[in-house]
Amino acid sequence: MKLYDSPTAPSPRRVRIFLSEKGVTIPTVQLDLRAGEQFRPEFRALNPQCTVPVLQLDSGAAITDIIAICRYIEELHPEPALMGRSAEERAVIECWVRRIEWDGICAIQEAFRNSMPGLEHRALPGPLPLDQIPALAERGRLRTAHYFAGLDARLADHPFVCGKAFTIADISAMVTVDFAVRAKLDPPDHLRHLGRWYEEVSSRPSAKA
Amino acid sequence: MKLYDSPTAPSPRRVRIFLSEKGVTIPTVQLDLRAGEQFRPEFRALNPQCTVPVLQLDSGAAITDIIAICRYIEELHPEPALMGRSAEERAVIECWVRRIEWDGICAIQEAFRNSMPGLEHRALPGPLPLDQIPALAERGRLRTAHYFAGLDARLADHPFVCGKAFTIADISAMVTVDFAVRAKLDPPDHLRHLGRWYEEVSSRPSAKA
Repeated sequence: MKLYDSPTAPSPRRVRIFLSEKGVTIPTVQLDLRAGEQFRPEFRALNPQCTVPVLQLDSGAAITDIIAICRYIEELHPEPALMGRSAEERAVIECWVRRIEWDGICAIQEAFRNSMPGLEHRALPGPLPLDQIPALAERGRLRTAHYFAGLDARLADHPFVCGKAFTIADISAMVTVDFAVRAKLDPPDHLRHLGRWYEEVSSRPSAKA
Repeated sequence: MKLYDSPTAPSPRRVRIFLSEKGVTIPTVQLDLRAGEQFRPEFRALNPQCTVPVLQLDSGAAITDIIAICRYIEELHPEPALMGRSAEERAVIECWVRRIEWDGICAIQEAFRNSMPGLEHRALPGPLPLDQIPALAERGRLRTAHYFAGLDARLADHPFVCGKAFTIADISAMVTVDFAVRAKLDPPDHLRHLGRWYEEVSSRPSAKA
């Protein structure tokens, strides 16, 4: 197995934190995204979407979705369980992760990629050059604020995103906070449940991964 | 268990086709999306994202993500397997499903919702009223064409999206074709591998679900 990784993007970091929580180490290949290494023919042959992370299995198969990578690792190394211990837990956690991806990561990305100098034709990850749309940057800011308010409400009566246990939903949501800070979309201080939770999850050793 | 469904949207249809392939029946509650029933307080309490499908379990838990719903059903009714028989198969299928959702469904939705009269403030599903962005309709058309070309290339040397067996990836991809036709973004005739595959999958009895 081999993990295609990059230190500068939020997505592969979710996998690194997951592996750290599991205590699992996988050999990595580092890609320089700023130099465009994800668009090179040999990487494009592995993942036509030109994104990291990618987990390449010994069979040659390329796993290109973050959650599919984590689920594969969870099947190999069930403990500590980070994706649920019953069918119902697994389903609830998957819903939260996808909600965090759609309402959080995609929203922040919408704001970030449609306004950053240097990303003029890279409004979405992937092989298609797409121009920035200023109205989309504005929409991303609005959606991000809505997302953090919803996460705060959830954390008002849940210690972690999916209840009493730390899961992959917390990893994903923590990364949205750090990504938002980088995009200058910091969650406002009055969201104190979010603040309490963030302090706790970001002080785990895995957060440094 | 209860499935919140609607006959007019592509998303719940994916679950109905999945259930039909499994031979499983679940009591349904039909929502009239055109009348805005998904925004009523009682449904919003169940799913703050105001989307269908939702699978409500006997415990009261609401499963709001299509793939999480299907995975839950697959755990209860493993045969016929539609999500893979090994960790590697499951991972590859999950990647394809998410690629079909992101590059296909989201792209078609981008084109459709940003141009349709009657959806002026509904540019995304969910509770936030968001104005249409004409440049996004154009981007959606470009992305959709790219998606269908990639799917055709994949189907040139695979009978089904993930290989020799019909899976949830075929269900998801078939729904993108039907959604695209509705959005007047029909895949072009020269994509003949896609045409061959579509004819086969859409003639299965489950396609009527």
